[in-house]
Amino acid sequence: MAATAAMRGMSAYRTQAAFPPPAVSQKPADRQAWIAAFRQVRDETERRAAPLSPEDQQIQSMADASPTKWHRAHTTWFFEQFLLRAHAPGYAIYDERLHYLFNSYYVAAGPRQPRIMRGLITRPDASEVAAYRAHVDRAVETLLAEATPATLEAVLPILEIGLYHEQQHQELLLTDILHAFAQNPLGPAYDPDWRFPRPEAQAGTVELPGGITRIGHAGEGFAFDNESPRHDVLILPVGLDRALVTNAEWLAFLEDGGYARPELWLSDGWLAAQAEGWEAPGYWRRDDRGGWVSMTLAGIRPVDPALPVTHISYYEADAYARWAGRDLPTEQDWEVAARDGALGDAFGLVWQWTRSAYTAYPGYRPVAGALGEYNGKFMSNQFVLRGSSVATPDGHARVPYRNFFYPHQRWQFTGLRLAQMRG
Amino acid sequence: MAATAAMRGMSAYRTQAAFPPPAVSQKPADRQAWIAAFRQVRDETERRAAPLSPEDQQIQSMADASPTKWHRAHTTWFFEQFLLRAHAPGYAIYDERLHYLFNSYYVAAGPRQPRIMRGLITRPDASEVAAYRAHVDRAVETLLAEATPATLEAVLPILEIGLYHEQQHQELLLTDILHAFAQNPLGPAYDPDWRFPRPEAQAGTVELPGGITRIGHAGEGFAFDNESPRHDVLILPVGLDRALVTNAEWLAFLEDGGYARPELWLSDGWLAAQAEGWEAPGYWRRDDRGGWVSMTLAGIRPVDPALPVTHISYYEADAYARWAGRDLPTEQDWEVAARDGALGDAFGLVWQWTRSAYTAYPGYRPVAGALGEYNGKFMSNQFVLRGSSVATPDGHARVPYRNFFYPHQRWQFTGLRLAQMRG
Amino acid sequence: MAATAAMRGMSAYRTQAAFPPPAVSQKPADRQAWIAAFRQVRDETERRAAPLSPEDQQIQSMADASPTKWHRAHTTWFFEQFLLRAHAPGYAIYDERLHYLFNSYYVAAGPRQPRIMRGLITRPDASEVAAYRAHVDRAVETLLAEATPATLEAVLPILEIGLYHEQQHQELLLTDILHAFAQNPLGPAYDPDWRFPRPEAQAGTVELPGGITRIGHAGEGFAFDNESPRHDVLILPVGLDRALVTNAEWLAFLEDGGYARPELWLSDGWLAAQAEGWEAPGYWRRDDRGGWVSMTLAGIRPVDPALPVTHISYYEADAYARWAGRDLPTEQDWEVAARDGALGDAFGLVWQWTRSAYTAYPGYRPVAGALGEYNGKFMSNQFVLRGSSVATPDGHARVPYRNFFYPHQRWQFTGLRLAQMRG
Amino acid sequence: MAATAAMRGMSAYRTQAAFPPPAVSQKPADRQAWIAAFRQVRDETERRAAPLSPEDQQIQSMADASPTKWHRAHTTWFFEQFLLRAHAPGYAIYDERLHYLFNSYYVAAGPRQPRIMRGLITRPDASEVAAYRAHVDRAVETLLAEATPATLEAVLPILEIGLYHEQQHQELLLTDILHAFAQNPLGPAYDPDWRFPRPEAQAGTVELPGGITRIGHAGEGFAFDNESPRHDVLILPVGLDRALVTNAEWLAFLEDGGYARPELWLSDGWLAAQAEGWEAPGYWRRDDRGGWVSMTLAGIRPVDPALPVTHISYYEADAYARWAGRDLPTEQDWEVAARDGALGDAFGLVWQWTRSAYTAYPGYRPVAGALGEYNGKFMSNQFVLRGSSVATPDGHARVPYRNFFYPHQRWQFTGLRLAQMRG
Repeated sequence: MAATAAMRGMSAYRTQAAFPPPAVSQKPADRQAWIAAFRQVRDETERRAAPLSPEDQQIQSMADASPTKWHRAHTTWFFEQFLLRAHAPGYAIYDERLHYLFNSYYVAAGPRQPRIMRGLITRPDASEVAAYRAHVDRAVETLLAEATPATLEAVLPILEIGLYHEQQHQELLLTDILHAFAQNPLGPAYDPDWRFPRPEAQAGTVELPGGITRIGHAGEGFAFDNESPRHDVLILPVGLDRALVTNAEWLAFLEDGGYARPELWLSDGWLAAQAEGWEAPGYWRRDDRGGWVSMTLAGIRPVDPALPVTHISYYEADAYARWAGRDLPTEQDWEVAARDGALGDAFGLVWQWTRSAYTAYPGYRPVAGALGEYNGKFMSNQFVLRGSSVATPDGHARVPYRNFFYPHQRWQFTGLRLAQMRG
Repeated sequence: MAATAAMRGMSAYRTQAAFPPPAVSQKPADRQAWIAAFRQVRDETERRAAPLSPEDQQIQSMADASPTKWHRAHTTWFFEQFLLRAHAPGYAIYDERLHYLFNSYYVAAGPRQPRIMRGLITRPDASEVAAYRAHVDRAVETLLAEATPATLEAVLPILEIGLYHEQQHQELLLTDILHAFAQNPLGPAYDPDWRFPRPEAQAGTVELPGGITRIGHAGEGFAFDNESPRHDVLILPVGLDRALVTNAEWLAFLEDGGYARPELWLSDGWLAAQAEGWEAPGYWRRDDRGGWVSMTLAGIRPVDPALPVTHISYYEADAYARWAGRDLPTEQDWEVAARDGALGDAFGLVWQWTRSAYTAYPGYRPVAGALGEYNGKFMSNQFVLRGSSVATPDGHARVPYRNFFYPHQRWQFTGLRLAQMRG
Repeated sequence: MAATAAMRGMSAYRTQAAFPPPAVSQKPADRQAWIAAFRQVRDETERRAAPLSPEDQQIQSMADASPTKWHRAHTTWFFEQFLLRAHAPGYAIYDERLHYLFNSYYVAAGPRQPRIMRGLITRPDASEVAAYRAHVDRAVETLLAEATPATLEAVLPILEIGLYHEQQHQELLLTDILHAFAQNPLGPAYDPDWRFPRPEAQAGTVELPGGITRIGHAGEGFAFDNESPRHDVLILPVGLDRALVTNAEWLAFLEDGGYARPELWLSDGWLAAQAEGWEAPGYWRRDDRGGWVSMTLAGIRPVDPALPVTHISYYEADAYARWAGRDLPTEQDWEVAARDGALGDAFGLVWQWTRSAYTAYPGYRPVAGALGEYNGKFMSNQFVLRGSSVATPDGHARVPYRNFFYPHQRWQFTGLRLAQMRG
Repeated sequence: MAATAAMRGMSAYRTQAAFPPPAVSQKPADRQAWIAAFRQVRDETERRAAPLSPEDQQIQSMADASPTKWHRAHTTWFFEQFLLRAHAPGYAIYDERLHYLFNSYYVAAGPRQPRIMRGLITRPDASEVAAYRAHVDRAVETLLAEATPATLEAVLPILEIGLYHEQQHQELLLTDILHAFAQNPLGPAYDPDWRFPRPEAQAGTVELPGGITRIGHAGEGFAFDNESPRHDVLILPVGLDRALVTNAEWLAFLEDGGYARPELWLSDGWLAAQAEGWEAPGYWRRDDRGGWVSMTLAGIRPVDPALPVTHISYYEADAYARWAGRDLPTEQDWEVAARDGALGDAFGLVWQWTRSAYTAYPGYRPVAGALGEYNGKFMSNQFVLRGSSVATPDGHARVPYRNFFYPHQRWQFTGLRLAQMRG
């Protein structure tokens, strides 16, 4: 897939080739590949948590975010609950009481700690969560090494989704700690040496002539349920910018009164902007000399005009497009343009808002059981983002991948590229 | 248009043939037709308000609703603001102070009374609002009778949208007073003789084979801006039920635990249902003997199993479809199925939720000026409903018409019909 | 009682001599006096409501206020519930359904319409409430004329508290409609000819030498339960200003930054002032030329420097006293100073905040039954005010009378007089 | 003072004789006593924090509570801000940025971190706060050892209030962490060996014959400003129970429907109880067999009938007294009864609600400057508690001491003793 070449993670956090693992199969030789993939993903979580103190890992700075410690424990609970509890008969549950604490939203998996109170659980502490992780890791690795072929056949699909699930939490771990640090007037740095990667795209557009094409998961390799079924769509003629909108361009919008002109905004967006006092992208603030600085993973840094704008809500992306006399692409436009690789900076910088509301693909049905709650039940009130961001783990993103957030949310690495309807 | 034959208003409130008026033109003969249409629409508002006391007309029972008196005054302000102020030079503004009170959400038209405080304005009272209406009516009729052709050409499009706008408020007037009366433990009747019309549809489905077709406003007659531009869409093979879902069917869902099984619900929907304590459609309550009654425009009445279910949110419609193993149609499906007239009860009973989020048609641009705020700025977080309801004025609804509400809202006459993807 | 001479109602609304009635007794000659007192009080309510339209009477502009129509109906319900239902065996309840609607807070009298929804009950309308009042009035008058002496003995104490209760609602009727009208940008006048009475007090202080004295209800005539038991208190040496604080004096506080200096304020008061954006007394606003105007019962009028300041919260009164280097008096100080008549403007202008929290007199016990909920259950978080206001009906106030409101409330006619501890 | 003998702290945490220090003076020999007192108080804070992990010390479980780490830092800031910054010229501020983070509510001392966001500051972490404490401790001890007599004269009163201030935070540290742990379904123990001390009081009452007496700070030793001026009060004849109300007695109230009978409750109290779902004292919950257990500093333990009831609000204390046909004492009653030592369990078990609203003593004036914000600005909406609790540090409490909390608050060790008016 040509687009893969364009994928790019946060260079300092680039992982090795163990992930993604081979397609799910029962060939004996695969066991080691799966163990390697498992170890790599599990290690990456710990590597991302390593710069954080016990205090850093404890707090939940808003309802949308979760503590680092919770991410570490919840991803572990996922393997314990869906894989070990069901498929490793001799497995000793680490501590039954953790089940209530570290379930996230799986109603079918039983009652759980209210989301907004995740930051109030100080015990188990960070070191005990490390022990919990080690306990589960050993059991999973043993299971992978020793399971019968029939068990392995049942286990690998759960393992696979568990790995992708953990990668999603790896991204959240970074965006959540950034939000937490942004509440601290001292502006702590997650990593003083962290740098946002520079964009590489050329100017100009990718032109789609329009017509019927198929999108969605093609049936090879892993995909989330919301990428299926693959189905026909009608693309209307459209051109998509090769490049992302930059901070320099956003400053022009801002200086043209973009945040003070209600006619540019959706009604709900204007209400959100007024209620929250938005005057610039998330984490931007004026410095003492009137310039713009931004809270980043490296602490407070000047806004770099050459970088893509990020931490913007859908409402802001929509207002910007209206101001520019342009459109946001649909998610179908994006997928078609991206799959031939011509779209620049599609991956590894910022998630790109599309103007597509997040809904089910025609004929979509969630999978049975608690894992069926994974994606389908969120299909209202959110918008689709495509691509991936600087915080997305290597190997995680793919062209048909559908991310989604509420239109007011800004704490992810979210940006935009513009499009233009033709004819 | 075959579907027109199927349109059906609230029989007690059927209007005469004066509306809709002829297509906008400048032929002198049209003046009388437009004056007749204007009078008919204006009279219909007053006829709907007539059963209501000054007290009834005063109150606002929730933020989403408005007082009857406000509807009567706001629709009048619309003509004064956008038609008379701009195009009738000698027109004497009735009272400049009313401008602030009766602007709704037109940010471009200046500051306005906060929406949630509409119920606190007791003066002008209902009789003075009647005088305001008469003042504006005289001026509009004089303008229509005496304007130069050039002025008439400028005025008629504004008049036309003003009439459709007032019809929308006529529908809201009924749904808002129903909500208000539902807060009163005495359950007052708007009209003791009011009856919900009986459905006429046959069993079975309308099958769409799929393919590319064009939807949206075809360019003749009036349409709101959100129905344009007309554009190609790809329909996938689908069958739509000819009949609406009935109260009897809804009771089966309810008795099967539909309101108590989170796996049937969207996540946001489940939260709304829990927060609001939903156990049945809006206005349903248990009577003393355990049966279901419902607050209606005729007061509290037994739930009639043969009638279409109404006052349901999108979340409930979606949960019902999931429970039934069916789908809601897209708005495109609905439009294509409805335009050949085969869809039963398409109009005049209940608005029908589709699974389409309310977004702009490809290439949509709002019109310039304050009237550009009409539809476009609401294109987020809402879902499209198609058809029309028992409260919709005659002549208002059309096949391409796009209504929209937030997925939690239940005070409109909202129902559903099911669909089934094929192949 | 010398202070009686200083009592003064709103001159336009002065009542005749029928109220207060003679002390409760069973002498036959008293029947006519009680009927006269009953009629006078009932008529006064209607006279206060007369300038108000059905719309005006309908609305509830905040949770603390009630609709005029509700005041008219609730005071009627009080007689029906506590007097007729219990003591007039042949009495036909006007409409049992009104019981739920017009109970206020008497938990022991059964469930009731939630307070914040009083404004949503449009039916019964104002004219039916008039019929309800007439129905109850006839029954009460018949009962008073025809009851046996034993029944009359039981009935008169209830009648008496019912009359004082209705007078309290007469005051609220005016303060509530003033608040409602203040929400209307048009600033309607309750009575264009209404004028605030001018103060009459001399300069200087009333000096209390200190010592043990008795305060509270002396046992003759009517008193609310919270004025008992009469008990000894120790007065410390103190001087109370003869005059009330005026608008002119308040302007000096305001211009000295009184509303911007947290060190002058109680902590809770500062939070309330910031949250509500207080910059001046309630209803004050700047006019176009920078002067101060105020919403009054006569509409929007310039602030008159010679009048007592009013519509101030306890927090503002306390901050003012601190700014002035003075104290507020205790309620005991006020009572002792007022009972020899030396305190100027004690009655008929503004209720005067004291620094006494509203608590039970030593040995206080509420009366049994629903009427026991009258005063005792509010004995926390409120402060005592003494005197009476321009809105208090004639004959209602007395020296030992204890009024009470929460320290943040401003919609009553509330002001202050200062005191100074001696030695 | 006889009562001192009755004072009793949490035995496991009893401190040595170094605190309280001698009365403020300038005798050279006092330097060592003050240094010893300072060390003892500072050490006690660290000793209370020692069982807590960095995670435990980080969180703020409600707006009324603060993180352990914040208590440790804020008490340090108090010495740095009010003592070292002003009086130790060569002192190097540890980190100027901490000033914003660790100011509590001293408006005059500049802007500060919003109270509800104290739990979001992860850096400085617990170990850096330890370094901050050591830095300030060294500087204070050096200042005490080396200051000129004139400086020492200025410094000692600030030091003294700083020590009592820190002791108040020591108590809060325990009550706040108990609240935090109570949010954790695992019910962690602060100290598994912790035990609530057993009451020692005899049955019977202490009778006060009534009359004029003086209360308040007598002028020797330390006192907070709210204990002055000493002044005459009139005590009415009253008997105070020697013993506190026990859990056994509270269970009788509870089983008699005490939490379900609105007639027993203040109106605001009933609203609070309904809104919060109170059915028992704070931290009580039913165990699996229907018995009562309670969250304590030792974790979840059975409710011991012999112990005094605690974690009750004023509203509950007031309802209990009404149910029992008794009164709460006034704070004056309590002080007079306690000062001859006859009141049992006056100190060291639970703070005892009085029925006295927290207001200024006659003639009270706050001290000048930021320290003047200490007590005076809270003199509204709160009630006085007397005595001390199991969490109060040794040497802190005294007979005239006035504690105060809002009537709905339950997270302190609050209980009650009953009284009975005589004659």
